[in-house]
Amino acid sequence: MRTIDWVDDGIELIDQTLLPERCETLRLETVDGLIGAIRRLSVRGAPALGVAGALGVALAVATERDPADAITRLRAARPTAVNLAWGVDEAARHVAEGFPAVLRRALAIRDDDIAACRSMGEYGTALLTGLLGEDGTGIRIMTVCNTGGLAAVERGTALGVVQTLHERGRLAEALALETRPLLQGARLTAWELGRMGAPYRMIVDSAGPFLLARGHADAVLIGADRIAANGDTANKVGSYALALGARRAGVPFVVVAPETTVDMATPSGAEIAIEDRPAEEVVTLRELRLAPHDAGAINPAFDVTPHDLITAIVTDRRIVRLDRAETLASVPPGPRAAMPS
Amino acid sequence: MRTIDWVDDGIELIDQTLLPERCETLRLETVDGLIGAIRRLSVRGAPALGVAGALGVALAVATERDPADAITRLRAARPTAVNLAWGVDEAARHVAEGFPAVLRRALAIRDDDIAACRSMGEYGTALLTGLLGEDGTGIRIMTVCNTGGLAAVERGTALGVVQTLHERGRLAEALALETRPLLQGARLTAWELGRMGAPYRMIVDSAGPFLLARGHADAVLIGADRIAANGDTANKVGSYALALGARRAGVPFVVVAPETTVDMATPSGAEIAIEDRPAEEVVTLRELRLAPHDAGAINPAFDVTPHDLITAIVTDRRIVRLDRAETLASVPPGPRAAMPS
Repeated sequence: MRTIDWVDDGIELIDQTLLPERCETLRLETVDGLIGAIRRLSVRGAPALGVAGALGVALAVATERDPADAITRLRAARPTAVNLAWGVDEAARHVAEGFPAVLRRALAIRDDDIAACRSMGEYGTALLTGLLGEDGTGIRIMTVCNTGGLAAVERGTALGVVQTLHERGRLAEALALETRPLLQGARLTAWELGRMGAPYRMIVDSAGPFLLARGHADAVLIGADRIAANGDTANKVGSYALALGARRAGVPFVVVAPETTVDMATPSGAEIAIEDRPAEEVVTLRELRLAPHDAGAINPAFDVTPHDLITAIVTDRRIVRLDRAETLASVPPGPRAAMPS
Repeated sequence: MRTIDWVDDGIELIDQTLLPERCETLRLETVDGLIGAIRRLSVRGAPALGVAGALGVALAVATERDPADAITRLRAARPTAVNLAWGVDEAARHVAEGFPAVLRRALAIRDDDIAACRSMGEYGTALLTGLLGEDGTGIRIMTVCNTGGLAAVERGTALGVVQTLHERGRLAEALALETRPLLQGARLTAWELGRMGAPYRMIVDSAGPFLLARGHADAVLIGADRIAANGDTANKVGSYALALGARRAGVPFVVVAPETTVDMATPSGAEIAIEDRPAEEVVTLRELRLAPHDAGAINPAFDVTPHDLITAIVTDRRIVRLDRAETLASVPPGPRAAMPS
């Protein structure tokens, strides 16, 4: 099952707002429909947004009277994720060549994501084995948000590494932060871990740093929405608190994301725009009101983890050991790692 | 309105499980009824639990065939909060003198809590003014859980200081962490801040450290469930992550709690038992299921903030500046501060 795909001249995607209760496919045949799905997070996760952006350009060329205008609106549907704009731009470069060329590029991005996630699983597993050893008791991973297949096309980034560890019998337990306000951890990551048969437990977000202090996890793995040139990483809010907790506990803190997430044009995290989402997401939960009716909220969807708190960045083409003073500039991307057959 | 009181030979308390939707009084005439109310958090907060423990002993002497057994069960209703056991023990010392002596002691504890909270408001305001200056723009405070009047009898501890700041026109804004899993911040602190007319906004717990990094608050104030002899402080889970964030941001992190919370018999946080509450609190929210039906959880109700991350401990009888190498042993308790008339 793919999270997002091109089927019969339209985009089909798993509507993630309905999980874990229902697993339904949403079919989109207009750019505005896709923009709406992106904004309400029916599709989310950096790699999946890249594919959505590229397929959306194909949709624009096929259906819109003014494709350029539709492409501009699609590109701006969510501000923090670099992958959405990247996917849009990649496909849009082929607009002059016509619909088949655009679609071909979009499908190549889809296939490339599948290959990239497999490679990240290999590199991530190799890194963790190197950092933590092969003592046979298995590795306990803490993670936030959803970075699994639901955030990509088939396999994920950080949770893709967890999946690879599990497939090789090396995962002792995954500790998943529920990830308020939208509970991607409780709804999506737990659902994926259950489907893969991996041992896991949920925790509230604020318990993460404390459970690291008490020795409950061997490593923290997170995804990324944008990685600046100096290694500062924008990811789901809560990542920064985990990084502080991991540093104090002496636990490796690893970012796992495809090369497309690396944005060398952004020097540091200070230049990353943080999406301020509606207060309503904080003070209500579905039909429930959590706070008094007139309560306001600040709702930063992402935070920025400074590079000095990051042990390593794992992409589909390299491992950059920030803890050894390596940088994104000093370690060039290499070949993808192949899964053992 | 008092959070808890002795009325017509029974205990009356605001049922905090119903806030903010409804403000209802729960009347308890048996020790087992009180134990149930404590366990399901109808009454919570360290100072209020001290009063509940003392009044519960009066109830035991008045109504139980075997008061000693009932007192033992009451004392163990929640393991982490030192105040519950303290309140029980204080009243229980008078059992041999009969019911009137027990009740007299319990009511004295109630009245003492009211006076202690007023004093903490003064000491806390003096400390913050000294730390942050008097520039007239007002102070922005971040806080977790509920440490207001609902956690005490009339005024609170950390939120009592916020209330004092607000009454003196010195509060610019309170940022309240929602405090998963039981949402005491969203339900109770927001309700209290609204009633006192104070400017406030809600944030999800994991946003706290990041918003400190971005300069959104001038100080963090928390309460305490137990303060060990070396200053390590057990408080609502999430406090430790805020302390890490405050340290990195260079923002003062202040613990506000009555002297009764100081437990010199416990050398450090390593010896504090952390209550592991039911997984159900994490994976469900009232009638809503947040995670898949078979999801487990770790649910530590408290965490421990190491003393080196704490700027100062404010009690009703002293300010201990840990940031200046003062200790609970080196700074003896003094007189209470009086509210200006």
